[in-house]
Amino acid sequence: MKEIGLGLLGFGTVGAGVVRGLQDNGALIGSRLGVKPVLRRIADLDIASDRGVTVDASILTTDAQAVIDDPAVDVVIELVGGTGVAKDFVLRALAQGKPVVTANKALLADHGAEIFAMAREKQTDIYFGASVGGGIPIVRALREGLSANRIESIHGILNGTCNYILTEMERNGVAFDDCLADAQAKGYAEAEPSLDIDGFDTAHKAVILASLAYGGTVPMEAVFVEGIRGLSALDIGYARDLGYRVKLLAVIRSEAGAVEIRVHPSLVPMDSMLGSVSGVFNAVLVNGDMTGDTLYYGRGAGADPTASTVLGDVLDVVRNLESGAAHRIPAIPESGDAIQLRPMPEITTRYYLRLCLKDEPGVLSMITHILGRHQISLASALQKEAPEDNHVPVVFMTHAAKEAEVNAALEEIAALECVAREPVRLRIEG
Amino acid sequence: MKEIGLGLLGFGTVGAGVVRGLQDNGALIGSRLGVKPVLRRIADLDIASDRGVTVDASILTTDAQAVIDDPAVDVVIELVGGTGVAKDFVLRALAQGKPVVTANKALLADHGAEIFAMAREKQTDIYFGASVGGGIPIVRALREGLSANRIESIHGILNGTCNYILTEMERNGVAFDDCLADAQAKGYAEAEPSLDIDGFDTAHKAVILASLAYGGTVPMEAVFVEGIRGLSALDIGYARDLGYRVKLLAVIRSEAGAVEIRVHPSLVPMDSMLGSVSGVFNAVLVNGDMTGDTLYYGRGAGADPTASTVLGDVLDVVRNLESGAAHRIPAIPESGDAIQLRPMPEITTRYYLRLCLKDEPGVLSMITHILGRHQISLASALQKEAPEDNHVPVVFMTHAAKEAEVNAALEEIAALECVAREPVRLRIEG
Repeated sequence: MKEIGLGLLGFGTVGAGVVRGLQDNGALIGSRLGVKPVLRRIADLDIASDRGVTVDASILTTDAQAVIDDPAVDVVIELVGGTGVAKDFVLRALAQGKPVVTANKALLADHGAEIFAMAREKQTDIYFGASVGGGIPIVRALREGLSANRIESIHGILNGTCNYILTEMERNGVAFDDCLADAQAKGYAEAEPSLDIDGFDTAHKAVILASLAYGGTVPMEAVFVEGIRGLSALDIGYARDLGYRVKLLAVIRSEAGAVEIRVHPSLVPMDSMLGSVSGVFNAVLVNGDMTGDTLYYGRGAGADPTASTVLGDVLDVVRNLESGAAHRIPAIPESGDAIQLRPMPEITTRYYLRLCLKDEPGVLSMITHILGRHQISLASALQKEAPEDNHVPVVFMTHAAKEAEVNAALEEIAALECVAREPVRLRIEG
Repeated sequence: MKEIGLGLLGFGTVGAGVVRGLQDNGALIGSRLGVKPVLRRIADLDIASDRGVTVDASILTTDAQAVIDDPAVDVVIELVGGTGVAKDFVLRALAQGKPVVTANKALLADHGAEIFAMAREKQTDIYFGASVGGGIPIVRALREGLSANRIESIHGILNGTCNYILTEMERNGVAFDDCLADAQAKGYAEAEPSLDIDGFDTAHKAVILASLAYGGTVPMEAVFVEGIRGLSALDIGYARDLGYRVKLLAVIRSEAGAVEIRVHPSLVPMDSMLGSVSGVFNAVLVNGDMTGDTLYYGRGAGADPTASTVLGDVLDVVRNLESGAAHRIPAIPESGDAIQLRPMPEITTRYYLRLCLKDEPGVLSMITHILGRHQISLASALQKEAPEDNHVPVVFMTHAAKEAEVNAALEEIAALECVAREPVRLRIEG
């Protein structure tokens, strides 16, 4: 059987998963493909550590460029991560017309335009299925399966660390800090967890999904990002009482020619599909104008699920090479138009507001008067019996309202003498 | 922009959806594709009825063969349905090397081997994404996204009519016949509902999914099929009390080199992803050895969702034509080996058993003794307080047991003097 040479850059957790996948399923992949994928070179700065897989020492090197330039390497798999040398490696491979498969979301979010342009210029392939959703073939679904649709919206649970923490907070009524410590102990959260819990990892993925849905690239700065660090178990409990769960969502929505991209904790109905996604799992709900709601669910991280998608991309790239169809599909749709972005104050959604109000006559009417002046109408209100120093928590669920009006209303409300703490505001989706 | 000619066979509901999709999103599709898809001919026996879309009368014909043979038609879309003339049309197009996009599950389930062989011989494409799951890109996920995986199992809710009926039966405690009548009144079920409710539609789809997962084709006769007609609202209620919902599932499972393919009502945990799929929606849970569980959810039928997938396939086919990469991916994996099937008596799963027992000492021990003799151990038992003529319903949930043993045990049990009616047996999955 004809062989095709793979070069692997980055021999970390996912890299080891790719090696294991090729060892376990290489024959199956070969029979599906009609050619045999052979891992010819692996580059990593550390070529001594045990990764739990056995590879011939002769294919290991610390010189990534040598791997890229090796004529025996037909396809380059970039799993170095980050936006430093990884960028040079990817561009170097593409410049030689060698297809690249990568899982590097930060790289694509920050430098996608340059990288996609190079792939187009050289008419070669850049595949990045594993950059969003780990083992879930969501990039493929957007780029190919739903390609006849105008994408109306995408709602994604894209970070397993956050979803694990939020699931635990709800199930056990535990505070955020304790859940984070537990997630770190179990290996679900990094020692330096900011990238995950402050929403940036989700934002990287949101930018990639938006590019796939609408063409063009989006600067990270255009994304509104709010993480889960400030969340209180109290609000998660109240949300549950109201039939909702709190999820860190990436929301991408197109309306009237403008696209909003935002990442923040959101209330989703408990009995919805997104509300059913618990623990480290990820899911993406895509609404297309023809297909309506479709949802994609699975493990968003981990060596083997991510390697599954990396290797699925490798199969695609090899098929393109074999059939002389490199750059058969552009990395992102080449619409030509830049995405028109909707600024955050202009968005419209529903809100969960928790206020800590003095328990005396006239207070509620003062609050509802302010909300009304800002065209914020209430779907429900819930006064909790948990008085503290003559104050009670009151939860309002609004109908759709404009973010700018909610900002203004909350500013007025926070300044009232009868309001004890900073108001809590969460957005409701779906 | 270069044009590519489409010929549509069958101008029914989905056909009209395809026309509408091309009219609404044709420009978008063209910009994504770099070529403009143009609907050149439509064939149907009825070219007079109003389908709610406007087409130039000159492209309508009653002569399907003329459409297939028209040199201006580059891609044939077969939406005639059934296994009669549709088979001739598909083979005629493929024989000319023209790629075919079809949504015809019955055709592929019954004649897939012949059709796939013709596509291979002529090195042209047969795409059938819309044959399973309507608007859900599940065929693509199996054929491409998960192609590095060994597929361990597939559990699919593949028939919206059945899922609607089962959802209503559970929510409202209504009998099957009433729910069916309601579904028929709402247009969710056919006047002749057997294909749906007796499980054959689901079985057609199961056969296609098995072919995609394991290569080769499977005769319909090899599939164990049990529909939902005999289901009682009582069992749905008991299942709910135990934390389960009843779904008509296609189960495809590979173990020790043999594959089981079965369609029957199944208990799935209420808080699982499959348990969350309600109403007319479909979902497919795929377990791959690398990716673990992934799930795909959406509308399994309807004009626009199905047309979304048909047009997604058309885009793929056109990309293959444009890049000279026809037959880039075989219709199903060409493993060469026939699928080894596991006969139904050999399967192992968990069971829900409801017996109607005489309310007197010693009866339970007689039952559990018989179960024990057949290596059927109990996870839980639940005696309900609903005595009728000195009989009580008792529900047993078993651990994993062998179907043949359960058959034998139930035969013995049914023959006991203390057992009033035919025992009810449902299988538990997940």
